[in-house]
Amino acid sequence: MIKINKTRLREKVRSFSRFGDNGNGGITRLSLSEPALQARKELICRCRKLGMEIKTDDLGDIYAIRKGTEDLPAIVMGSHLDSVVNGGNYDGVLGVLTGLEVIETLCAGNRPTRHPVGVMVWTNEEGARFDPAMMCSGIVTGHFDKDTMMHSKDPEGVCFGEALAESDFAGSRENRLNPRDYAGYLELHIEQGPVLETMKKEIGVVSGVVGMVNYEFTVTGVSDHAGTTPQKTRRDALYAASGVIVKLWDELEKIDDELVFTMGRLNVHPNVHTVIPDEVRFTLDARHQSPGIIRKVVEVIKNLPHEVKGCSVEAKELWARDTVEFDKPFVDAVRDASDELGCSYLEMYSGAGHDAQYVAGYVPCGMIFVPSHNGHSHCPEEYTPIELCANGANVMLNALLALDVKKS
Amino acid sequence: MIKINKTRLREKVRSFSRFGDNGNGGITRLSLSEPALQARKELICRCRKLGMEIKTDDLGDIYAIRKGTEDLPAIVMGSHLDSVVNGGNYDGVLGVLTGLEVIETLCAGNRPTRHPVGVMVWTNEEGARFDPAMMCSGIVTGHFDKDTMMHSKDPEGVCFGEALAESDFAGSRENRLNPRDYAGYLELHIEQGPVLETMKKEIGVVSGVVGMVNYEFTVTGVSDHAGTTPQKTRRDALYAASGVIVKLWDELEKIDDELVFTMGRLNVHPNVHTVIPDEVRFTLDARHQSPGIIRKVVEVIKNLPHEVKGCSVEAKELWARDTVEFDKPFVDAVRDASDELGCSYLEMYSGAGHDAQYVAGYVPCGMIFVPSHNGHSHCPEEYTPIELCANGANVMLNALLALDVKKS
Repeated sequence: MIKINKTRLREKVRSFSRFGDNGNGGITRLSLSEPALQARKELICRCRKLGMEIKTDDLGDIYAIRKGTEDLPAIVMGSHLDSVVNGGNYDGVLGVLTGLEVIETLCAGNRPTRHPVGVMVWTNEEGARFDPAMMCSGIVTGHFDKDTMMHSKDPEGVCFGEALAESDFAGSRENRLNPRDYAGYLELHIEQGPVLETMKKEIGVVSGVVGMVNYEFTVTGVSDHAGTTPQKTRRDALYAASGVIVKLWDELEKIDDELVFTMGRLNVHPNVHTVIPDEVRFTLDARHQSPGIIRKVVEVIKNLPHEVKGCSVEAKELWARDTVEFDKPFVDAVRDASDELGCSYLEMYSGAGHDAQYVAGYVPCGMIFVPSHNGHSHCPEEYTPIELCANGANVMLNALLALDVKKS
Repeated sequence: MIKINKTRLREKVRSFSRFGDNGNGGITRLSLSEPALQARKELICRCRKLGMEIKTDDLGDIYAIRKGTEDLPAIVMGSHLDSVVNGGNYDGVLGVLTGLEVIETLCAGNRPTRHPVGVMVWTNEEGARFDPAMMCSGIVTGHFDKDTMMHSKDPEGVCFGEALAESDFAGSRENRLNPRDYAGYLELHIEQGPVLETMKKEIGVVSGVVGMVNYEFTVTGVSDHAGTTPQKTRRDALYAASGVIVKLWDELEKIDDELVFTMGRLNVHPNVHTVIPDEVRFTLDARHQSPGIIRKVVEVIKNLPHEVKGCSVEAKELWARDTVEFDKPFVDAVRDASDELGCSYLEMYSGAGHDAQYVAGYVPCGMIFVPSHNGHSHCPEEYTPIELCANGANVMLNALLALDVKKS
């Protein structure tokens, strides 16, 4: 079987870690920031050297295509080059760089493909500078409204639209990924969790992206002076909220071993050590591949008492998404390639969101996971050994070639 | 018995509510801000009209003194004119205005006193602009270091010392309240709690200020992705902290009915809805007049497990104060005046801190509480009906006169 060059891939990972280097082993490469634009230019430069044709769409998404031998729609390998603040050197960029290494391997071996094949970069996947995450894959696939997104502002008040216009990366709308010109999309990504490492698997054959619900709870009590209000008359929102959090955790934990849920954000008002809190707001994020399990989560929430320790408790759904299933031929191609390469693998759902979840249902699509050391991501400690990166790239290369033969 | 003029007192409360008027029924009159300086000038203007002598000390504390008939140290009635952000029209200012009304009543009735008697204003009691609270009474009585306090900065970066120098209120250090020149200090204050109103009492005869301990808890877990980290492997600091809060509350509640405790401030890190919290810090403030009860609180804290739900739990004492007892002749004078005026009263400890707690032990001292409607304070809803304000002023007047006779 044809294989990528690990040394070349290592050079790519190291080179791209310069863009936004934090000096602490990680990077800050916010979407359309100077370091992100440098990374884009470096990628385009490398793709041009391989004879690829470069296009951008009206959202700055980059498409670098190597010609095929037949007049067929393209198959692209994509991910993103932006990071969160103080992120790592693998999330997103590894999917782009393994795609580039796959193309470089084909070029080096003079290996033709029937379909045009290429590398693509989604703009603003993280949503760390411009809310929301997966903004441009969401626009292209009809999940978000472009005009609204153009006005999304970063913390300095710069609109996404302004930053895009200044970037020189905005191209033509007709260049967007679409089902007529594209036959498939493959995304390699780090797992961002500990499951593959813990289970000693080299490859995650990703079946889809789990469904989720996100709620905000508001617990309302009465604010009073910490020193002068008798304990028995208090309606302390933090005491009540703490009880609700413990109860929610204990109830949800019983539903299913694969259910994950997180109360990640909690804000207390007025948050002064001498004042009884009158309001606590906290979020609940719950994810599982089965809609039935998610329905049970919603039931637990709906069955919570509306009054706890004299405080009112309200739950509001912020958003929800159904489980997204990837296309069978793509999932099969990833599994078969892993098998043929002798890589151990696990069939799994992604708990995290990825551009591929929006692409699914629009253009046929699949994903490959490689292990995250200690499950870390979105931090400088994010790490995947180069051997495991190379395994992932080899699976991508061979899955791509298999799809190139099968797909019309 | 001699009585103050309720109509005049009402006018004073209304007039001073203009300084820093928020337009919502409350005020923002941060220490040494323009509205606070206006209130000080108005007070001085009124005191001069009554023939009082005005002095300020090196901290901007104001002393307005009416001469006595004998060469004795002065007895002053004091409190503060500054407020918190969006505070009310009674906290602090009522103590100053009832003092002024007492003097005006003495002047109107040509009633002499043996001791010089007067009104005083402490600078920066709230600590809402310059940390800490009760700054200047703390400096004068040797609890705080002046140089350190002069460098305390407001959120705009202005030092207390700079604001004081610009205010034109800084006078001479030798004018500070001291045991040689002052025979007593009386402070009237709103209760800031619901006890008097609930128990249908008109006057709080304040025995002292309760002792307290203040702890900060740090619960440390491990941060990970909300979607990809299996539930059973999580070390979620917010889940652990919630359990600790519930346990602390439930244990402390059992100790004593008069113990009050508050977990008022809680901060989550990184506080992102899709990230498992790795650190939660929260405060515990506990107050009771008996040192034995406070020791039981400390025992509960010390007996907490050091590990909860896979997270470490640490408790650090931030500060503590012992119960302050006011001087018996002053407490007696307040009780006797209430009795003689036919006012119902409750002997009680203050749960809140006041300048008087620093004065106690330095200059003989007592306090009078008037009820807070619904227990509200530090908010626009802060309210004490004028009849109850007048009762308090009458108790102050008659306690002052009794002390004037008794004290040498």
